[in-house]
Order: sequence, then C-alpha cells, then structure tokens
Amino acid sequence: MTDPADRPKTPILDRVSLPSDLKALSDRELKQLADELRAETVSAVSETGGHLGAGLGVVELTVALHAVFDTPRDKIIWDVGHQCYPHKILTGRRDRIRSLRMGGGLSGFTKRTESAYDPFGAGHSSTSISAGLGFAVARDLGGDPGDAIAVIGDGAMSAGMAFEALNNAGHLGTRMFVILNDNEMSIAPPVGAMSSYLTRLYTGGPFQELKAVAKGAVGLLPPPMQEGARRAKEMLKGMAVGGTLFEELGFSYIGPVDGHDIEQLLPLLRTVRARATGPVLIHAVTKKGKGYAPAENAADRGHATSKFDVVTGQQAKAKSNAPSYTSVFAKALIDEAGRDDKIVGITAAMPDGTGLKQFAERFPRRSFDVGIAEQHAVTFAAGLAAGGMKPFCAIYSTFLQRGYDQVVHDVAVQGLPVRFAIDRAGLVGQDGPTHAGAYDIAFLANLPGMVVMAAADEAELVHMVATAAAHDAGPIAFRFPRGEGTGVEMPERGEPLPIGKGRMIAEGKGVAILSFGTRLSEVAKAAEALAARGITPTIADARFAKPLDRDLILRLATTHDALITIEEGAVGGFGSHVAQLLAEEGVFDHGLKFRSMVLPDVFVDHDAPFAMYDSSALNAEHIEAKVLDTLGIDRLDRRA
Amino acid sequence: MTDPADRPKTPILDRVSLPSDLKALSDRELKQLADELRAETVSAVSETGGHLGAGLGVVELTVALHAVFDTPRDKIIWDVGHQCYPHKILTGRRDRIRSLRMGGGLSGFTKRTESAYDPFGAGHSSTSISAGLGFAVARDLGGDPGDAIAVIGDGAMSAGMAFEALNNAGHLGTRMFVILNDNEMSIAPPVGAMSSYLTRLYTGGPFQELKAVAKGAVGLLPPPMQEGARRAKEMLKGMAVGGTLFEELGFSYIGPVDGHDIEQLLPLLRTVRARATGPVLIHAVTKKGKGYAPAENAADRGHATSKFDVVTGQQAKAKSNAPSYTSVFAKALIDEAGRDDKIVGITAAMPDGTGLKQFAERFPRRSFDVGIAEQHAVTFAAGLAAGGMKPFCAIYSTFLQRGYDQVVHDVAVQGLPVRFAIDRAGLVGQDGPTHAGAYDIAFLANLPGMVVMAAADEAELVHMVATAAAHDAGPIAFRFPRGEGTGVEMPERGEPLPIGKGRMIAEGKGVAILSFGTRLSEVAKAAEALAARGITPTIADARFAKPLDRDLILRLATTHDALITIEEGAVGGFGSHVAQLLAEEGVFDHGLKFRSMVLPDVFVDHDAPFAMYDSSALNAEHIEAKVLDTLGIDRLDRRA
Repeated sequence: MTDPADRPKTPILDRVSLPSDLKALSDRELKQLADELRAETVSAVSETGGHLGAGLGVVELTVALHAVFDTPRDKIIWDVGHQCYPHKILTGRRDRIRSLRMGGGLSGFTKRTESAYDPFGAGHSSTSISAGLGFAVARDLGGDPGDAIAVIGDGAMSAGMAFEALNNAGHLGTRMFVILNDNEMSIAPPVGAMSSYLTRLYTGGPFQELKAVAKGAVGLLPPPMQEGARRAKEMLKGMAVGGTLFEELGFSYIGPVDGHDIEQLLPLLRTVRARATGPVLIHAVTKKGKGYAPAENAADRGHATSKFDVVTGQQAKAKSNAPSYTSVFAKALIDEAGRDDKIVGITAAMPDGTGLKQFAERFPRRSFDVGIAEQHAVTFAAGLAAGGMKPFCAIYSTFLQRGYDQVVHDVAVQGLPVRFAIDRAGLVGQDGPTHAGAYDIAFLANLPGMVVMAAADEAELVHMVATAAAHDAGPIAFRFPRGEGTGVEMPERGEPLPIGKGRMIAEGKGVAILSFGTRLSEVAKAAEALAARGITPTIADARFAKPLDRDLILRLATTHDALITIEEGAVGGFGSHVAQLLAEEGVFDHGLKFRSMVLPDVFVDHDAPFAMYDSSALNAEHIEAKVLDTLGIDRLDRRA
Repeated sequence: MTDPADRPKTPILDRVSLPSDLKALSDRELKQLADELRAETVSAVSETGGHLGAGLGVVELTVALHAVFDTPRDKIIWDVGHQCYPHKILTGRRDRIRSLRMGGGLSGFTKRTESAYDPFGAGHSSTSISAGLGFAVARDLGGDPGDAIAVIGDGAMSAGMAFEALNNAGHLGTRMFVILNDNEMSIAPPVGAMSSYLTRLYTGGPFQELKAVAKGAVGLLPPPMQEGARRAKEMLKGMAVGGTLFEELGFSYIGPVDGHDIEQLLPLLRTVRARATGPVLIHAVTKKGKGYAPAENAADRGHATSKFDVVTGQQAKAKSNAPSYTSVFAKALIDEAGRDDKIVGITAAMPDGTGLKQFAERFPRRSFDVGIAEQHAVTFAAGLAAGGMKPFCAIYSTFLQRGYDQVVHDVAVQGLPVRFAIDRAGLVGQDGPTHAGAYDIAFLANLPGMVVMAAADEAELVHMVATAAAHDAGPIAFRFPRGEGTGVEMPERGEPLPIGKGRMIAEGKGVAILSFGTRLSEVAKAAEALAARGITPTIADARFAKPLDRDLILRLATTHDALITIEEGAVGGFGSHVAQLLAEEGVFDHGLKFRSMVLPDVFVDHDAPFAMYDSSALNAEHIEAKVLDTLGIDRLDRRA
C-alpha cells in the first residue's frame, strides 16, 4: 500500500466524482484531467496489479467520451473491458479503485452489477459492436434512450464476431458509434491481414489529412478538419472504387485521428454526436502504455502486471518453486515436436498465455497465431489434421467456447485427430467469472469419439502431451489449470498413457474418492485429516473423463460403501458420466453412497484462488466434510 | 421412382465414372457434360427430394473445377455442402445418387467417410476457407500434397468465421483458392452490408471488364482477359486507396465472372492454377436453381425440395394433420408480440426455418435477420435485452453451438433476459449428424441462472413461448423438435408456466418415468403396452431441466422402486442433473433403480426419423424394454 501522501497530486480529478462534473470543465482543464487520470491509474495499479497498458492508451478517449456524451444515458461499451480502469475512476469508483481484482473489490472488467456506467460487461473480446447495436436498436424501438458507443481495439477486430456486427450495423444503418482504438497491440502484437490493412490506413500521411472522404463523412467533421478532408476528397475524385473497408460495410469512416490529442478528439466527438444519422467509425491511433515509460518500453506494453514500483516499474512478482502448467505444456510440446515434424501449434492471439510463443521461437514454421479467431483456429486445425498434420490447438477453456460448433461439427463429427490443449481450466482467480473454465468437461465429454483428459499435476501434463501426440485415432483434449504445479518430480520424457485408464493412488476402504484433475492434491490432504479419524479412503486419479475407466469405476463402486467424484467443472461433466455408467450398470439399485463434487451453480466472483475454491467448497476441508457427511458421521464426531 | 427409360439422355456423362475421365474431353464436350449433369441432378432430386437449387447453380463450376484441377489430390471443399450433388455424380457416386438422404444412402452433404473426393465434410456454413487453409498449410509443411479450393456462397461470407479465415489466409500468403459463388441467395435472400457490397462489385459493368486490377491479379488472368483488365488498371492508375475488400485482406481478387459460362471458367482456372503463388479469390456470379425453371422461379430458388414432378416442378409433400412445431412457435410469438411491443425476433439467416419470416411480415420493425452470424445474433440480443427489450433469439440447436460463448459470457454471466427459441432440438432426420440438436440441454443447463424448458407437444410449446415472454428475471430457453406436433388440442392463448415445476401425467406405481420433451408420446405408448402386463408406470413431464422440480423428482424417487428419465439429448443434460440431485440428497444411498435414457454416444446417421429413434433406442418399445429390464423382469416374462 502506497502512503496516500505519496500519491500523485490530482487537483482537477479531485473535483470529479461523476462524469457530469466534466461538463463544467474547460477543454484545457479536460486536458489536465487526462494527465491526472493517467497518474492516478498508474498509482492505483502499482498497488493492485492488473491490466495497465490498455487503460493508459485510452485515457484521453475516456475523458473525451465522458465529456462529450451524456453517460450513463449514453452507453460506452468498452470491448474486453481491461482498458476500463480510467473509466472506473471517472465514474464514481475512484474510492474503490485500489481494490481492483481483489476479493470483494472492483472487477478488472466492466460489470453491469458494479455501476450504471457499465452498461455491458465484458471480459472476452469483440462483443462491443454487437452489444452496442443492440442498445441502438432498442432505443429506436422505444427501449432505453441514449447513444451507444463501442470502443474496440484493433486486435479485437480480427474476430469474426466483430465483422458480423459491422456487417449487420452497416446494413441496418442506425445511428451508433464505433471507436476503433488502434494501438497495433491486442495482448501480443496483432496478426492477420486486417491488422496490416489498418496500419496502411494511417501510414504515409499525417493525421490531419483525414481520409474521411466517402459517404458523407465529411459533413460529420468539425470545421477545421473539413478543409483538409475536402482537399483529400478533391484529390480522389473520380475514383471508381473508393473508400475503406469500413465504408464498404456501410459505416462513415473518420480517421485516422491521434487518440492522445484531446484537443482534436473533443471537437470531433462533439460534431459527430450532433450530426450523425447512421453508423460512424472513428479510427483513433493510440499507444498502449502511453505516458508511463516502463509500460511503453515493455514488449507487451504493460498489458497485465503484478504490483510494481511506480518509479522503476519493477514488478513484485512472487517466486514459485514449481513451474507453471503453461510452461510445462510448452516445454513438453517442444519436446514432442522435436521428435515429430508433423506436430504444429495453433493459438488464437494468446502466444504468451498458452506458451505457444516458446514453441514458435523453436519452430517458427510450425507455429500459427491466427488472431482472436477461435472459430477459425479450430477448423484450421481440422484442415491441418485432414491434411496429415498433428495440430495442437492451444486455447483457454473459456475461449474454446467460441469455437464450440467447430469442435463438434468440423472435428468430432469427422473424427479428425485435433489435439486440444485447454489451459485455464477451472477457476482462474482475479480474472473472475468471465474467464472461468467451468464448462469444457461437460461440453466435450458428450461428443462421440472425443478423448477428454485432465492432468492431476504437472508431471501428468507431460504424459498427456505425449498421449495426445501419439493419439491419431480421433480428437483428444487435455485440460490443466492456471498457475503453478505442485512441485512433483518431472519425468525425463512424456510417455503415452493407455487411453481410458485411470490410476490408483491409495488403496483404502469404506469410501473411494475418484478425482479428475488437480483437485487430487486436496484429496490427498483430506485423506491425511481423515486418517487421524481412522478413515482411510481409497484414492484414484481418473485421468480420463472420456472414455471412462469402466473397470476401475465399477470396482471402486462395488467394493466401497461410498464413492465420491471430484472435478473442477460444472455439473454435466465427469461426475455425470460416472453417474450414467453406474445407473446403466444397475449399481444404484441396491444402494451406493454416491456423491459428485463439482463447481457450484453460480458464477464465482473474482478473488484469490484459495478463496474461490473455498466458496466453491472444493478445498481439502470440504472433501473431508463430504466424506464424513456421506458416511453419516455426525457433526459431534467430526469435532472430535 | 422414375422409370429409368424416362431419365434424361446423357451420352457424355455416361462416359464419366471419375473426374480423371474429364481430362479426355474437349471444352465443347465439357460444356455439353454440364448440361447433362444438370438434367441428371434434376432427375435424381425429383426422386429423392433434397437440396436442389444450390447444386444447379454450380454445375458449370463443378465441371470446370474437376476438369482443371487434379482431384482428389487437389481438394475441392464445398462450403455447407448442399450444392455437392453434381459433384457426387461426377465422383463415382452416380449409381447411388438416387439414394440421397435415405437411410444407408448418400449423405446430402459432403462426407469424408463417403468418398476420397470429399476431403472435408460440411453441413454448417462458412467453414471451407478455414479448412482449405489447413490443407494448404499442411501441404507446405510436408503433409498431403495438392491444392485446396474452397467454394463458398455469398451468404456464407456473412459469417465471422469466413472473415477470420480470409484474414489469416491473407496474412499467411500461402497459395490457395477461394471461389466465391455469388448467387445473391444463401437460403433466404441474403442480408447485411457485405451482400450489398458484393452486388456493387458486379453491377454497373459487364463481366468482361474484369476488376482484377490490383496486387498482380492481372498476371493470373488468361490472355484474352488480360487486355480488358490492363485497360481497367490503366484507368485506375494512381489510386491512393484501391482494390476490393478482399484485396485489402491480402487476396488476389479476380472477377466478377459469369459462373455459368464454362468457356470463360476453363481458361481462367487453368491460368490461375498454373500461375498463382498466393491466395486467390475468384468471384463467380451464378444463379441458384439455374436451368430448371420451377426452381429459378421459386422464392427460395428451389433451395430444398420434396420429391417432385420433373416437368411441372410440383412437389409431392405429404399432408399432416398436425401443425409443425415451427409454425406453432411463430404463431405463438406473433400472438405475444401483439400484446407486448417490447418483443423482438432475431434469426441468423433462417427466417423460413425458424418461422421468423411470418413474424417479420407482421412486425417488420421488430424482426432482425442478421445473416449467418450466430455469435453476433446472441450478443445483439443481449444488447437489446440490456436496452429494455424482450428479444427472442430463434436459432436451431445445432447452430446455437456457434454462439455458445456469447450465451455464456454475454447472456448468462450478466443474467440478461434473452429468450432462446431452440428449433430442431434432437434428431433431425435426413440432414443427419451435422444438424442433430443433441447437446443444447447439456451446454445450457449447467449455466447459472439459465432456465431450460422442453415442450412435450405443440400445446406445451405455446405455453412455453408465453412463459419466456413473461420471464424477465434472466435468460430462458425452450427447445422443440423438427417436424409436426402430435395433434393435441391447442389452447386459445399461451399461459405462463410456473418456473421449475413439472406436471404429473399419470399416477401409477412401482416405476416412474420422467420425460423431458417430446418423447412423452412414446412414453405413453410404452405405458399402454406395459399395462397389458399389469405394470402401471407413473408418468410425469418435467417441463424444466433447469431449475429442476426438486419436489416432484424426490417424490417420484422415494415413492417408486425405479425412476427412469428420458430426453432427446446427449448425456450431461436433464438426466445428469436429476442424478446429481438424487446423489446429493442421498437417494441412492439405500437403493433406487435409476436409469437415464439419452441419445447414444454416436453421431446418428441420416435416416427417416423413426429409424433414427430406433437406432437410438428412444422409441416406445425401448422404453418398455428399459422398464422391464430395470424392474428385473426377464426375457421369458417379456415374451409372454
């Protein structure tokens, strides 16, 4: 915690409690407000950690939008939402900004339940234009009044969803605003032809030579800009095919403009607000991490950070003894790929987060970052598999939801051997409910022919990478959580596991606990506590949710009074498949104390991981309690 | 069955058993071959029913592609695949073409297991460019050799997935071909700004004035075309921003060309095949239903048809006494919308299939066809809900998989009251596994706050529409199958059902059958058969998979020896949620004969609906057998 006395001086910001206070400020004061807001953002994130670079890139846009539009009646929809910290400071949440991403504190993203100034929550990319169009059309039909302004990054524009929304908005022709926040960075440097195209739009000409020449956009410009634009239009007169890609899709395109020049942004926004009748796209060029040197100079422009020293930018990152699951995956995949030149890696704009970056450094030709494009990523992988390659499609659990139809239709129906490396499976800590990987077991394990594994620890993960590499018979998926492993001894080399076979961890009696995934270490802790009471559970690691190890499960069920499954996923997954097997085999007919521990039926709010497991009742103490409850040992006994 | 003597005369087609036979034909013969292929396609579909218009639109393209490229080494990937009947006739499947979409017969789509000439199966739209890029990159990396040619319709271009693939292909710059088959029709007339853009590309100029002016595409043209193109290029020299949207994305654009002029197609394809080094898009303008007047004149250009008379085009559609579920939904929604002006309807390019067309006729301002864009459809609906409207998002079960992340992230996490009308839930007959609605119960019922209903008959559907209209507390979904209802008496007006409450159908004893959805009528039939044996099952209709009717389920479970659930969905859905409840409540501890009847763990091949239910063991006789098995009544007793 910084001594409040060391915090930046913010005389104008101190006068702003809500955006309505901005109406009383002069343009000059708004400019100073932006500087103060930037300092306050750096100071706050230095205490909390979180997404820094994106917010710094939109400080001027944030001030200008709130100064010109009438929020919350007008709705600013921040795409992804990790750039919203300055917005939160301006919209009545400054007093809580130093609780960002902490349990009970502010969300790191926009969130409807947090503030009326967050009209639409986010977390995943590229949703803002669709949502904004929804607000705009609702207004036209007599719903909530006000304008809709979607602020979307250039990286997010690579997602098909953004294109679908532009296509529909251009067709409908209703008034709405899209601010394309072009910082040439989403999280990693952006990829794809769209990105190159956007760069071409603003290279080769100074900002003031606005290319707003087609479809009446000139009329939307404030007077000093119109002149330059008219000149440009004159120059281009007679073009057979003119305008930008956005104009082709029915938008008035204005830009590029300098997104850090508030003196240009204010009159521009005032004019478009006064005059626009249809959809308008304003192309603002910004710099991620702007104004804070350590962020500007970082490779990821300070995308996400731990707590840090404001002066040096030095991050206070806790050192762990165990490697992260992500790095274990990356190393194992590189190892396999060194032996098999058919292995290729695919990421959807998350080379760092998935570890594919390391793979790409070693095997650049066999590594593909397709942009924020999970639908394409999956079917591209299916095509690669059909063409004889061994694709590893590395996508977070929560983002694989974006490619679900492609998993079903292009991979599973055809039985193509695509390997899904599912990182961030389960609860994800500070990113909260939008990023939780709760559903992948359920949505994959009921697909015919799909193999679904979960690693119990980082050594298991190495074997599962090897298993996936060796499995050519059809699709296969393996899931692993965010964070560090358990510190187990690592194998020299991964060995393919027998498909559909679990492993015994401890032979006990009375009760059997069958774990799928990394809750196994909590099961072991619970077993220790139970041993003190003379209860020695049998423990097994299922390894596979599909195909199930029928022999193992039926043996556990018929040689114990109680069988408890545990997984870090919602109902409908591993435990449900076990229940289906037990039911069909008639095991319940004569009695079995069966329980299935799963994620609770709520969206678990962001918090420290242990606290999230606690509220989800998936820690060792809950396993112990579940065993005691199931065996009918009452509370008094338990306290003994 | 047409008398074979009445079939068209096809002297050249009769000499073609595989595409390699085309190499021996002159261009003039290829032209005649196309005419014969068209006649053969019409004749075949007149006997089988199926997708007609799309195939007729690509007859010349089919002949030209197979004549110029070296299939199956070169891979033609038909997007969606419903235009592939002429392709099937040319690729060794003419002898089975009159078994299209019948049990054991040819699939109505491309299918890898059916032929080496189908390198990638389809059914859902807009996957072909991703798959083609996968093949192209696999080739570059030492996988299967040959070219990849994706043939994709203009309607399919509205899907974000196609944009994602173009964006990635343009970035990678590898050699591949995209044939944009622009017939201004996907299934319904296309919508969206992209569609208007494509039209602009070819209106105002004859075909021969090729607009292939940028990025070296001129060099790809055969000599007679180059001249016109060079003139055009000359004319446009000095343009600051030039080229088409596709060129901006990194493709060489050639077109528009007349897709029915085989004399133009052949030299063009020969030249691009010989010279292309990067991605090439050929914009071919075609006419859906081309060359068969009854199809050309139909509103949907003969998209899908029953068996018909070749001369008149008259379809032999069986009349049913009961209305289709789709039409019941449409009527009920119109009824609700007449009383509530906040209700809006959204379809993703399926106005006919979902019944939204009727809604649009009555409420044009409140109806939105967003194109093939399920991701956008869902989040657009979420935005509408956040803006105070009551959106009904009408999407087939199988296509809702495309918007799954948006259902989770934009709707469920935010608890927004979007209404999902899920048509084609369960098995879908002749469309087969790519269109089965098997997973929606599982992937929706584990989302916190989601209400999930299934209609047992068409009267129930009316009530569920009313329930959804009245439910403002959060998201709600109701599913119903393809086809006709059961002919029950219809209510005057829908009445909202109590959320989370099922209904008793029949009080019996010993065994209870709890049905979710339309299998209820089969349960009733099974009960009749069981009555003859003195077994009188209790029957209940769950109505809700979420929230579960706990009281009803626990009462059934504790007052019967056996409880059997049945649903038309995969494991992980309704039955799994019931099992979870029973386990947590300790009902299994002392024994319950619990069974859950679900879709089998296979992709069920296309067939007549009854046959599909039969192979899935979900007909009355299977329910009867399941009851007997569960009660332990052996086979001899059963035969009695």
